[in-house]
Amino acid sequence: MALDNGVIYLDHAATTPTRPEVVARMLPYFGEFFGNPSSIYALGRKSLDAIDSAHEAVARALHCRPTEIVFTGGGSEADNLAIKGIAYAQRRRGDHIITTAIEHHAVLRTCERLEQDGYHVTYLPVDEYGRVTPEQVAEAITDQTALVTIMYANNEVGTIQPIAEIGRVCRERRVPFHTDAVQAGGQIELDVTQLQVDMLSLSAHKFYGPKGVGILYVRQGTRVQPQTLGGSQERNRRAGTENVPGVVGAAYALELARAEREQENARLQALRDQLIEGMLALPEVRLTGHPTERLPQHASFTLAGVEGESLLLNLDLLGIAASSGSACTTGDIEPSHVLSAMGVSASAARGALRLTLGHSVTADDITITLQRMGEILPRLRALSTQPA
Amino acid sequence: MALDNGVIYLDHAATTPTRPEVVARMLPYFGEFFGNPSSIYALGRKSLDAIDSAHEAVARALHCRPTEIVFTGGGSEADNLAIKGIAYAQRRRGDHIITTAIEHHAVLRTCERLEQDGYHVTYLPVDEYGRVTPEQVAEAITDQTALVTIMYANNEVGTIQPIAEIGRVCRERRVPFHTDAVQAGGQIELDVTQLQVDMLSLSAHKFYGPKGVGILYVRQGTRVQPQTLGGSQERNRRAGTENVPGVVGAAYALELARAEREQENARLQALRDQLIEGMLALPEVRLTGHPTERLPQHASFTLAGVEGESLLLNLDLLGIAASSGSACTTGDIEPSHVLSAMGVSASAARGALRLTLGHSVTADDITITLQRMGEILPRLRALSTQPA
Repeated sequence: MALDNGVIYLDHAATTPTRPEVVARMLPYFGEFFGNPSSIYALGRKSLDAIDSAHEAVARALHCRPTEIVFTGGGSEADNLAIKGIAYAQRRRGDHIITTAIEHHAVLRTCERLEQDGYHVTYLPVDEYGRVTPEQVAEAITDQTALVTIMYANNEVGTIQPIAEIGRVCRERRVPFHTDAVQAGGQIELDVTQLQVDMLSLSAHKFYGPKGVGILYVRQGTRVQPQTLGGSQERNRRAGTENVPGVVGAAYALELARAEREQENARLQALRDQLIEGMLALPEVRLTGHPTERLPQHASFTLAGVEGESLLLNLDLLGIAASSGSACTTGDIEPSHVLSAMGVSASAARGALRLTLGHSVTADDITITLQRMGEILPRLRALSTQPA
Repeated sequence: MALDNGVIYLDHAATTPTRPEVVARMLPYFGEFFGNPSSIYALGRKSLDAIDSAHEAVARALHCRPTEIVFTGGGSEADNLAIKGIAYAQRRRGDHIITTAIEHHAVLRTCERLEQDGYHVTYLPVDEYGRVTPEQVAEAITDQTALVTIMYANNEVGTIQPIAEIGRVCRERRVPFHTDAVQAGGQIELDVTQLQVDMLSLSAHKFYGPKGVGILYVRQGTRVQPQTLGGSQERNRRAGTENVPGVVGAAYALELARAEREQENARLQALRDQLIEGMLALPEVRLTGHPTERLPQHASFTLAGVEGESLLLNLDLLGIAASSGSACTTGDIEPSHVLSAMGVSASAARGALRLTLGHSVTADDITITLQRMGEILPRLRALSTQPA
C-alpha cells in the first residue's frame, strides 16, 4: 500500500514517520499542558508527571529503573554523552577505549575526539559479515580500559553483534560497556539485564517516534560526566528544559513498538526474505552483512557495475525511496567505512544499496520493487560501461 | 482571559505554550513529510528544504546569513556549544573567559567546567539593578581573553545589559563575544549587527515555539568546536538527524514574534507597569532588577517577611501560576545567585517573586492578581511571624 502519496518507502533505517497515535499523545503538551516541569504550580507538575511516566514506560521496555533513563536531544547526543561521559568521569581508571571499525559516526567521531584528548582507542576489525567476537573484546581489554562501546546492530548492513556475550566479558573484567542500539531500537530485545550492558543509546525517530529525542540508559552506579551543563534536569545528567511532547512521544512509540514487535517482525522478516531472494536472483547482486544475524527489516546489497547514486535517483523517479547505506553520510565521496572494514572492495562498495522495511511496506511493494529493479539494473549497467 | 482552564499564567519567562499556528505548521513534518533531510530522494529533499527555509527565516530575524544559524536541542545546548566551542577552538589564543555573576546556570556551570579544565574565568560583579558596564568588560580583557559571554536579559530580574556597547568593546579588542539571549528572544531586538555579537543563543519555547529546540547564531569566521559529534548536519557544527518539525516550528514562532513584537510589547509593558505599580503599593514590597532597562513583560520583587515557596503554592491554589525567579533552580535551598550578586540579603531573597506576562494575560488578570496578592500577603506574613 506504500505511503499515502504512493511512494514505496524502503528507508526505515534512515527514519520513520511519527505514527498518528504518537502525535496525538504529544499534542496536548504543546498548547494545553505546556508548563515547565521544573515549575512548582499545577501546570508544571502536570508536565513533570508526564516526564516521570515517560521514564517509567521506557524503563519497562528496557527492564531497568526509571531513574536509569536519560532523555536527550537525539541518538547522537546519547552516544556522545555515553562515551565522553564515561571517558571523562573514569579518566583516572584508564585512558583506553575499545570499539569497532564499523560504528556509526556518532561513536567514531567521538572516539577520535577522545584520541585528540590523549585517550587510546582500539578499533576492533570485523569479519566479512560485519561481526566482532567476544574473544576479540576479551583480548583487547587491558587494565587501562575505561570503556567498551560496540553497536547492537549496524545501520548499513544490519548485522547484529553478540552483545550479551560481549557484555559478559566486560562484566567479568569490570569494564563499563555501552551499546549504540539506535538501529536496533524497536526491532529487537532491549532488556539491559539480559544484554549485560551498562549504557544503551536509542533514537525515537527510528521507531515511529519524534525526531529530536534520544534515550540513554545508564546503569545505576555508572558515573557519567554530564556534557550539557546548566539546570538539574534528568538528575543532573542533561541540562535544559525537557522537550515534554517529544519525551512523551518517544516513550509511547517505544511502548507500541514493543507490544507489536513479535507480530510485526514476523511479517517484515518474511517480506525481507522475499526481497533478498528476488534481489539475489538478479545478476551480480551480493548480500552484505550477516545472512541470519541481521535486523528483521534490513536488506543490503552490492550491485556490481552500478553507481549507487544513479540507482537511488532512478529508484526515486520510480517512486521508491532507498539508500546506499547511511543517510548521515550522503554526499560523501569516500566508500563506506563499514563495507571497507568488511573487506568489500571500493569499486563494489560504489554499488551499495540498502532497503529497510517498515509499517507501510506490503508484499505488493516488494513485488513492484523487484520488478522495477529488474528493469533498471540492465539499463544502468549499460550506461556505466559506455565510453565517456 | 487567562488560559482555557482559567489559570492566570504569569510565568512566561519559564516557558510559553506552543502557539496553535506553530503546531499546525509543524504537524505535516511528523507524519507526511517525515524524510531524513540527509536522504537523497524527494521525501528527504522536502525535509532539507524545510530545514533550509527555517535557517533563512531565523537569519531574517537576526539580520545574518542562513549559514550562520545552528539549530540545537535547546537553549542550554546552544550556550554550552557557544562557550565550550569557542574556548576549546581558541585555546591557543588564550585561556581567559569573562562573564558575569548573574548568568543562567547553562553559562555558569559551563564556565565552571572550563575552570576545571584549566581556564581562568572572571565573573564580573553587577550593580544593585543587575547591570554590568562596558567599562568593566574593557578593564577585564587581557591578551589571554578568548571569550566574553554576557547575557542579554536576566531571567530572574529582567535587567537588560548594554550588549551593543559591550559588543563594541569586544570588537575593538578583537575578542569573540557571545550573548545568552534565551530570555530576550522574541521580546527585544535581535539584530546581531546592531548588537555587535559573534554568537547569540535562543530557545524556541520562550517565544511560543516548541520545547527542545535551541538556536545558536555563529558569525561567519568564528571557529567553534562542535560538541555533539557524528554526522555532518548543521554544517558540521551539531551532529544528529535534524528535528524537522521542531526546527520548522522554532523558525515560524520567531517570525511571528518578530512581526507582533512592537504591538504586543506596548500592550505587555502597560500591563506590567500596572502590575508593578499595584505591587509596590502593597506594604514592604520592593522591585528587583532595573526600573526601566528591563524586559517589557517582566516584573520581579522581594516581599519582606514572606516565604517564596508558600507564596507560590498559595497563588497556585488561587489559580495564579508564578515563580520565585528561575524554574531551573526549583528545589534549591540556596538563595538566588542573581539576587545575592545584586546585594539583596539572603532573608529578603527568600521572598522573591517573579511575574512574567504574555499573550494570554489581560488587564483583568492583572487586577485579579493584585487583589489576590493583597488578600494573601497579610495572611502569609502573619503565619511566618507566629512562633513555631
